[in-house]
Amino acid sequence: MISQTARAAVSQPQILLRENVGDIAVLTLNRPESRNSLSEGLIAALDAALREIRDDRAVRAVVITATGSAFSAGHDMKELTARRGDPDRGRAYFAEMMTKCSTMMQAIVHLPKPVVAAVQGIATAAGCQLVATCDLAVASEAASFATPGVDIGLFCSTPMVALSRNIPRKQAMEMLLTGEPISATTARDIGLVNRVVPAGSERNEAIALAQKVARKSAYTVKIGKAAFYRQAEMNLADAYAYAAEVMTENMMARDAEEGIGAFIEKREPKWQDK
Amino acid sequence: MISQTARAAVSQPQILLRENVGDIAVLTLNRPESRNSLSEGLIAALDAALREIRDDRAVRAVVITATGSAFSAGHDMKELTARRGDPDRGRAYFAEMMTKCSTMMQAIVHLPKPVVAAVQGIATAAGCQLVATCDLAVASEAASFATPGVDIGLFCSTPMVALSRNIPRKQAMEMLLTGEPISATTARDIGLVNRVVPAGSERNEAIALAQKVARKSAYTVKIGKAAFYRQAEMNLADAYAYAAEVMTENMMARDAEEGIGAFIEKREPKWQDK
Amino acid sequence: MISQTARAAVSQPQILLRENVGDIAVLTLNRPESRNSLSEGLIAALDAALREIRDDRAVRAVVITATGSAFSAGHDMKELTARRGDPDRGRAYFAEMMTKCSTMMQAIVHLPKPVVAAVQGIATAAGCQLVATCDLAVASEAASFATPGVDIGLFCSTPMVALSRNIPRKQAMEMLLTGEPISATTARDIGLVNRVVPAGSERNEAIALAQKVARKSAYTVKIGKAAFYRQAEMNLADAYAYAAEVMTENMMARDAEEGIGAFIEKREPKWQDK
Repeated sequence: MISQTARAAVSQPQILLRENVGDIAVLTLNRPESRNSLSEGLIAALDAALREIRDDRAVRAVVITATGSAFSAGHDMKELTARRGDPDRGRAYFAEMMTKCSTMMQAIVHLPKPVVAAVQGIATAAGCQLVATCDLAVASEAASFATPGVDIGLFCSTPMVALSRNIPRKQAMEMLLTGEPISATTARDIGLVNRVVPAGSERNEAIALAQKVARKSAYTVKIGKAAFYRQAEMNLADAYAYAAEVMTENMMARDAEEGIGAFIEKREPKWQDK
Repeated sequence: MISQTARAAVSQPQILLRENVGDIAVLTLNRPESRNSLSEGLIAALDAALREIRDDRAVRAVVITATGSAFSAGHDMKELTARRGDPDRGRAYFAEMMTKCSTMMQAIVHLPKPVVAAVQGIATAAGCQLVATCDLAVASEAASFATPGVDIGLFCSTPMVALSRNIPRKQAMEMLLTGEPISATTARDIGLVNRVVPAGSERNEAIALAQKVARKSAYTVKIGKAAFYRQAEMNLADAYAYAAEVMTENMMARDAEEGIGAFIEKREPKWQDK
Repeated sequence: MISQTARAAVSQPQILLRENVGDIAVLTLNRPESRNSLSEGLIAALDAALREIRDDRAVRAVVITATGSAFSAGHDMKELTARRGDPDRGRAYFAEMMTKCSTMMQAIVHLPKPVVAAVQGIATAAGCQLVATCDLAVASEAASFATPGVDIGLFCSTPMVALSRNIPRKQAMEMLLTGEPISATTARDIGLVNRVVPAGSERNEAIALAQKVARKSAYTVKIGKAAFYRQAEMNLADAYAYAAEVMTENMMARDAEEGIGAFIEKREPKWQDK
């Protein structure tokens, strides 16, 4: 199923691997010795890769996965702590890192292509946020999820922005206040991931899910994804007024004309951007 | 249980049936040959029926159901496509239809009487939106739900307004991006419907659920339903200030005085508007 | 496990008991003969106790529970009804009570310490709201939950503010429109409570859960809880900008320095405010 893979260099190839599987870009967090913590370098590499992918017409969807036993442990505490020796005790650096990380997370939301997390191990703090931020998520039955910042005196405040937009309030509060992990199955039951698969198959299952979406019209997926997150922040009347405009524009597009025509004529559609 | 039925003509009786079962108005989508797609005529008929029901004091609740194997396939693609020959390639017509459909959906939200969907078959696109929009929904175990617009190049942007206000974000995204159907059981587990019943019993179960609400004070249900959707769009402090006002007004109403009196005296209340 | 308990007098000790179990304040609704309905006195006692606890550095978390067979039946209908003889037929008093009750509920949200409900029996109307308002909730398998105001002509409008921020929309609507109770298990499945435990163990389980959070840095829990509810009302971009600021401030605090240091050095942290 997976073929024609091509490794492309990114700015820091050693910590973020990029592989193209057909028209799916697979990004692999590759700092297993640091539990794939989101160092300044890894955040920058992810941000750069997402920017490249945004404009790469050969890429139709993205999978984010990781090497080693952990998916991601969140921010790199050693790197942050090293800046406590700065004249401002690290304040400017911390603010910069939190902003850069939040910007990268929002780049996933704003990417005009679907992003699927393939979670092979424990995802904690900003690692859990990364899963919550992706449009879709496939978890290994060996995966688990936690926001344990509270255990080290640093509440998972940015992770909770994404987490609390995925799961019910009391369950989010329990994760945030206790720091305790939840299983992949619980994560699915409360809405944090879409499906749980046998350990070792999460990467291929995520690629398969991404490919399913990649076969749709790229234009349609793009406007739909953007509209989803935008209408979610509107009241009902505004959301409907906006969505009705989006649908009208969508109807005028070549891919809708082709797709609806193919549907009526009972044939396969040929998308423009394929 | 069901008796005294009376068929009332609506503007287009052939495509929307209306039957009164006691004080429940049962609206039945009746274009089975077109999978009950929401043509201009059917949208207008639904809108007209809802307007009639709003002012009809004999009606206390509404059930929306359908004939044939599908509940509703959403917009009528043939009807929309026919307007591609217009001088503006259909733009004005498409905009008009999306607005009319959204207005009809919001008429359900604004109706001062509860609306229960009775879903006997597959509900797709705006058909799925119709279920999501109803206050309550009973699904046959044979029902299924999908937002497959993405398969024909037309993202389900208006359906997602209602869908994303019913179910968790990742599950909504999966339906919207893959176009794949979910079962009635999954729909219940993620919040899209209230209950799943044996095939063939969904209409009676929906009527029974509607009758349960119809036995309450019409005034109380009216102010409560309106307040529910209104407070949902406020922040917590505003929502409480508003809800406290609503409750104070409610306390001053005759039905609350009667209902609370009956409760304290351990007798059945007699509602004013019954 | 539970030791060194100390009973402290509150303004109205007979209707609200306060016991300190270690650094957990256990508040017990104690009007079992009135099904722990939230009379003017009980609302005032809860509000006063929350204010005391807010400034009491010996208290790190709160458990709210109740005596008798019901957790709380909501507002005290006899007390409210008695004011129908006022010159304004009670309007000013009703408005005052709704505002006082909403203020007390929001005092739980604004309390800089976690609040855990321990629900031993049925929680209805404002009693159900009290559970929904707590940060976390443990329910006995014998507990149940309802918003039955609709049955007495008084829609549960203030309870729904909290309820609809905990559970999916259709499930909230069903509770509000039918007035029917849901079981503890259903409450857990839809997000209203965190866990269901054997009858009789809910108090100790809630205390154990509160103690787990009480062992964290009080400062960290305080800023995290406040940020949680605040960001929940923002759009994504604003929420991230705000949360990034909160995390930067948090990083500069002594407890984060200590906690992260302890984490890196693999030792137990020593919190400042313990």
